[in-house]
Amino acid sequence: MRIALGLEYDGRAYYGWQRQREVDSVQQRLEEALSKVADEPVETVCAGRTDAGVHATNQVVHFDVSNQRRAAAWTLGVNSHLPADIAVRWAQEVDDSFSARFSATARRYRYIIANNPLRPGIHSHGVSHYHHPLDVDAMQAATPALLGEHDFSAFRAAQCQSHSAHREVTHLNVHRRGDFIIVDIKANAFLHHMVRNIVGSLIVIGRHQQPPSWLGELLAGKDRTLAAATAKPGGLYLVEVDYPAPWQLPQAEPGPLWFTE
Amino acid sequence: MRIALGLEYDGRAYYGWQRQREVDSVQQRLEEALSKVADEPVETVCAGRTDAGVHATNQVVHFDVSNQRRAAAWTLGVNSHLPADIAVRWAQEVDDSFSARFSATARRYRYIIANNPLRPGIHSHGVSHYHHPLDVDAMQAATPALLGEHDFSAFRAAQCQSHSAHREVTHLNVHRRGDFIIVDIKANAFLHHMVRNIVGSLIVIGRHQQPPSWLGELLAGKDRTLAAATAKPGGLYLVEVDYPAPWQLPQAEPGPLWFTE
Repeated sequence: MRIALGLEYDGRAYYGWQRQREVDSVQQRLEEALSKVADEPVETVCAGRTDAGVHATNQVVHFDVSNQRRAAAWTLGVNSHLPADIAVRWAQEVDDSFSARFSATARRYRYIIANNPLRPGIHSHGVSHYHHPLDVDAMQAATPALLGEHDFSAFRAAQCQSHSAHREVTHLNVHRRGDFIIVDIKANAFLHHMVRNIVGSLIVIGRHQQPPSWLGELLAGKDRTLAAATAKPGGLYLVEVDYPAPWQLPQAEPGPLWFTE
Repeated sequence: MRIALGLEYDGRAYYGWQRQREVDSVQQRLEEALSKVADEPVETVCAGRTDAGVHATNQVVHFDVSNQRRAAAWTLGVNSHLPADIAVRWAQEVDDSFSARFSATARRYRYIIANNPLRPGIHSHGVSHYHHPLDVDAMQAATPALLGEHDFSAFRAAQCQSHSAHREVTHLNVHRRGDFIIVDIKANAFLHHMVRNIVGSLIVIGRHQQPPSWLGELLAGKDRTLAAATAKPGGLYLVEVDYPAPWQLPQAEPGPLWFTE
């Protein structure tokens, strides 16, 4: 039997999603909790392997188990075995042909910048503090250049293992909510560090160190060494994963927290 | 010379605002940081003494120093000596007649309920999780009964040391933002546990265990033993303190975080 579940986590304490020897990972904590409930070893596959310090409000995961459990076992039951910074939001039985990774048609991330001369005192590891004033209109003016299907080599980490750098970005919006700037981006899939590299370059534009047209020029240049530094991981959240409608998976608020725009 | 400052903190790690022997407090951490910058012992007075686990986005504090410092010393300088969960948001020199406590004309709190069958995984100590569905319309319908000046004995902690139970509530609103319910309340001042006791009773109404009219009946009864249990501290934020206009203190977003309604 295959189960899909939606997962929320604060990535601060974890060395990313992926299970690795000798460091703590979200995947390991989840698999330990699932194995306790299932009473058998459980291995998971996720929609988006988040890096160290990166958060998720709607990571989607699937796993196979042979032991039948009532539905609440995979939500309330698993949550009782997870630490306070990881929580199952929903669980649903799915057909064996479903894959959290390969069935996904799109991923959406939000990046949150605390744009204030002084650092925050609340949830400081869940935002990226930037003390210089940023011009959100200039940042937003740069975004249309990335929409559509392109070669995103300019925003790809050196260690990225994908065989193609082509991705299709379906939306990219920048807006301000009080002292916070939210970058909201959706694509069929992302290259390694792609969101954080795009945000790093948007910050340069927001400071007026480059004009809005620079983002499109970087994209066309396909040269990672020309783009800005990678933005810090703490501001990044995986907030939504899309699957074809027939799967009928539960929808949860993208967030994070009370962010609803 | 007297300085006023605005302070944001996550109360999870602290035994409340007030300095006490053998336990960690926000006041002690702040006074240690201020004393380092001032190079002399500094004692502080605050607008609202928050309890253990309660947060603030705009606590207001004053203190006296004899050593002159440039303005940034009281913001960036103090922040460099504070832990990550406490931060100065603004600082301003004020006349010696200003008191963070006695000059304040009103305090505003927000209480955040994560209203979802499953517990949150992000910022879980900064919200109060309530898994039963709550009817926000019923909660809001109860609120007019508390507006105006009343004897709030029904919502006063047994250990409250105030000589009068009369307080004037100027606004009280309940609304939903996605999975979160925010109770927003402002009064000239509050009795000990007054916000959390009102929220506890609003939750009972939100569950339809009592009708909206119950809140006014509790108030009129002046009997703390009839009201509901005190709501948990983690959802509570001191978000605003008002002073007469002539003081011209800086205004900061009440929040918390990107909450702006």
